[in-house]
Amino acid sequence: MTPPVDGSTRRAVLAAGAGTAVAGAAAGVAWASRPAAAAPGAASGGALSATDGVVPFRGPHQAGITTPAQDRLHFVALDVVTDDPAALRDLLTAWTRAAERMTLGAEAAPGGTVGGGPYGVPQDTGEALDLPAANLTVTIGYGPSLFDGRFGLAGRRPEALRDLPAFAGDDLDPARSGGDLCIQACADDPQVAVHAVRNLVRMGFGVVAVRWSQLGFGRTSSTSTSQATPRNLFGFKDGTANLKAEEAAALDEHVWVASDDVAGGAGGAGGPGWAAGGPHLLPRRIRMHIEVWDRSTLQDQEDTIGRDKKDGAPLGQHGEFTEPDFHARAAGGDPRIPVDSHVALAHPDHLGGRRIRRRGYNFTEGTDGEGHLDAGLFFVAFVRDAHRQFVPMQRALARADRMNEYVEHTGSALFACPPGLPDGGDWGTQLFG
Amino acid sequence: MTPPVDGSTRRAVLAAGAGTAVAGAAAGVAWASRPAAAAPGAASGGALSATDGVVPFRGPHQAGITTPAQDRLHFVALDVVTDDPAALRDLLTAWTRAAERMTLGAEAAPGGTVGGGPYGVPQDTGEALDLPAANLTVTIGYGPSLFDGRFGLAGRRPEALRDLPAFAGDDLDPARSGGDLCIQACADDPQVAVHAVRNLVRMGFGVVAVRWSQLGFGRTSSTSTSQATPRNLFGFKDGTANLKAEEAAALDEHVWVASDDVAGGAGGAGGPGWAAGGPHLLPRRIRMHIEVWDRSTLQDQEDTIGRDKKDGAPLGQHGEFTEPDFHARAAGGDPRIPVDSHVALAHPDHLGGRRIRRRGYNFTEGTDGEGHLDAGLFFVAFVRDAHRQFVPMQRALARADRMNEYVEHTGSALFACPPGLPDGGDWGTQLFG
Repeated sequence: MTPPVDGSTRRAVLAAGAGTAVAGAAAGVAWASRPAAAAPGAASGGALSATDGVVPFRGPHQAGITTPAQDRLHFVALDVVTDDPAALRDLLTAWTRAAERMTLGAEAAPGGTVGGGPYGVPQDTGEALDLPAANLTVTIGYGPSLFDGRFGLAGRRPEALRDLPAFAGDDLDPARSGGDLCIQACADDPQVAVHAVRNLVRMGFGVVAVRWSQLGFGRTSSTSTSQATPRNLFGFKDGTANLKAEEAAALDEHVWVASDDVAGGAGGAGGPGWAAGGPHLLPRRIRMHIEVWDRSTLQDQEDTIGRDKKDGAPLGQHGEFTEPDFHARAAGGDPRIPVDSHVALAHPDHLGGRRIRRRGYNFTEGTDGEGHLDAGLFFVAFVRDAHRQFVPMQRALARADRMNEYVEHTGSALFACPPGLPDGGDWGTQLFG
Repeated sequence: MTPPVDGSTRRAVLAAGAGTAVAGAAAGVAWASRPAAAAPGAASGGALSATDGVVPFRGPHQAGITTPAQDRLHFVALDVVTDDPAALRDLLTAWTRAAERMTLGAEAAPGGTVGGGPYGVPQDTGEALDLPAANLTVTIGYGPSLFDGRFGLAGRRPEALRDLPAFAGDDLDPARSGGDLCIQACADDPQVAVHAVRNLVRMGFGVVAVRWSQLGFGRTSSTSTSQATPRNLFGFKDGTANLKAEEAAALDEHVWVASDDVAGGAGGAGGPGWAAGGPHLLPRRIRMHIEVWDRSTLQDQEDTIGRDKKDGAPLGQHGEFTEPDFHARAAGGDPRIPVDSHVALAHPDHLGGRRIRRRGYNFTEGTDGEGHLDAGLFFVAFVRDAHRQFVPMQRALARADRMNEYVEHTGSALFACPPGLPDGGDWGTQLFG
């Protein structure tokens, strides 16, 4: 087994002893081609492994989309502050290298924390030095504003990458919305996710600035059953009907942008074809008015969701994964699952078959200044076309969803994720051509 | 083995199978006396156990002070909004019952989530229904303002429980400072800590309102070595010289309020004697200017802290736990550990032997609106007398600490924790007598 070429890879990569992890670390350090074994079988988005804790960075699609949700999220939206396209391109290239290293459990740069000597500025901030890779994934996306002409990218904007319309009831905070770029870092340790975002932001001084960021929590691997559906802050299981990583055909239909989707635009090499294989990433910060919710009856809550609180079964049925029966009637003749319940309105049967891949995290951060906790769901959807999938769904929900009494959308953005990177590829070359 | 008396205890308590955990759950449900075995050996603050994940709630001191730091923190400061002392007293009594239940992995009330039937308002919000106790501790404290006369408690204020002076460089946000009461919830799962705070706040509708709250993260049991000193967001090990749970005599000297300390005041049964055995709890929200820090050299960083970044050893020495040698000289004749380094200024040798118990957590939440991450350390100190221990330490640091270039104190408060509760005791009776 070849040892890593520098001595500063983080603890667990050295300690893991797993051949792929260490070979991977060496490849990351040397920026060499990854071993073939890591390519298709272990492609991005594969199942998490408790033994090595490394999610492959490269593959047909970016990691962090169909990857089973890790415990923690740090999401950041950035604005580009330079007007030099080359600076942006170089940053994207450098980010690729650092992101791949960190997903392997290595420092952001070789010898990053202390290897640069006393007079050097450390190239890694060090707070993850003793921590393993923790299943870190780093997922990048580009907002519509990145293609406004500042960087010569106007011809490369996919037609579907345009700002979302306003929805009834939206209360969007501009300081929590939009952005030229985004980075989604997910890991089983919050310090690892925060470290990844921070080091990428640090590398971008003078090129990008943080516009907004969001920390989130979901399951905790060590205390929850890894296969159980986690609960949101309404106390209900959330994600039961999510599009699963195993549904390859459905992912092709609903999540991955097809080549034909981006064949138009300015056309040719300078066109939007780069976006094929990468979904739209659509974050919504959904504040939950938990104090109001907590004063409603169990029946109100279950009628709002359309599911049983304890087990997550559709109302009047048994079993969390039972398909909801919207024709079943209660004693009085009304539908057992209210037509304006969240489950009914968001169900593909009522949305022309549309489905989305969700990857949300709960959040709590301080108060609203009026004695209430500022808490809710940071909803992240991955879809092939936000305007054809999310917009009709959200219009239906915004119009009638019983849940609107308890939620408020306070942040929103839209990004196009590039597809995964092949060996030797990088984000700068991928976007700028 | 006696099963729990209601069927709604949370998953892990039922699954644990450990006699003490299940017996404890039954005791919590029935509000009966706890088994004697849980008293001294397994007293509050004992070592965490990965097998049962339950930290005893009762004992001579509250849990969450000398208890080894759990992975996550949710801290909330509250103001009392009623002027009815009986309502406050009743809430404190009800909180005791709910807090003890939750630390055992049970719901906040029997049958809390769904047991109240469709027309009842659930007495537990349910988001922790499938989760184990996760070593939850709930620690309560009372601020100086609680004793201002509104509740007939003026005579019960310990003399040392008075507002802190201002320190040079403070930039305190009133919306992140002060409070009549505080609750510190720590657990290995953030959802368990958030659930505990939320349910206690929910019970307090009309009696208390949230003034501010803070989420924090530290080590992650499943990815870090449990005995290793975790790193703060400066990338340095933090807590090496902390006062340890095993140092009983030092805890008596520096952390636990002695009976003599609170023998004065209005005297007798109505006096401040209730506070004996409980330390002052002193939170400081310390914003780190990580962008400035990240542009400084390794030597600047190490000279600021006074320790080696990689291993945490005092500068010029070896081993994290080596006692710093402040007399050692560098080649040029200057002290090897700068006299204005954080370690030098905060060392007991330079503070008349004063020591504190720290229990800080890292935080990251959004941005400061100027392109920077809002990140730092939520510092929580436990001391016998904040004015005799923390004030001289912070005055010395505020005057000269090199670290001041990189930090800003943006929140502060002071609370007196009551001591631990004996079997059958509750916070309402303990405070009001």
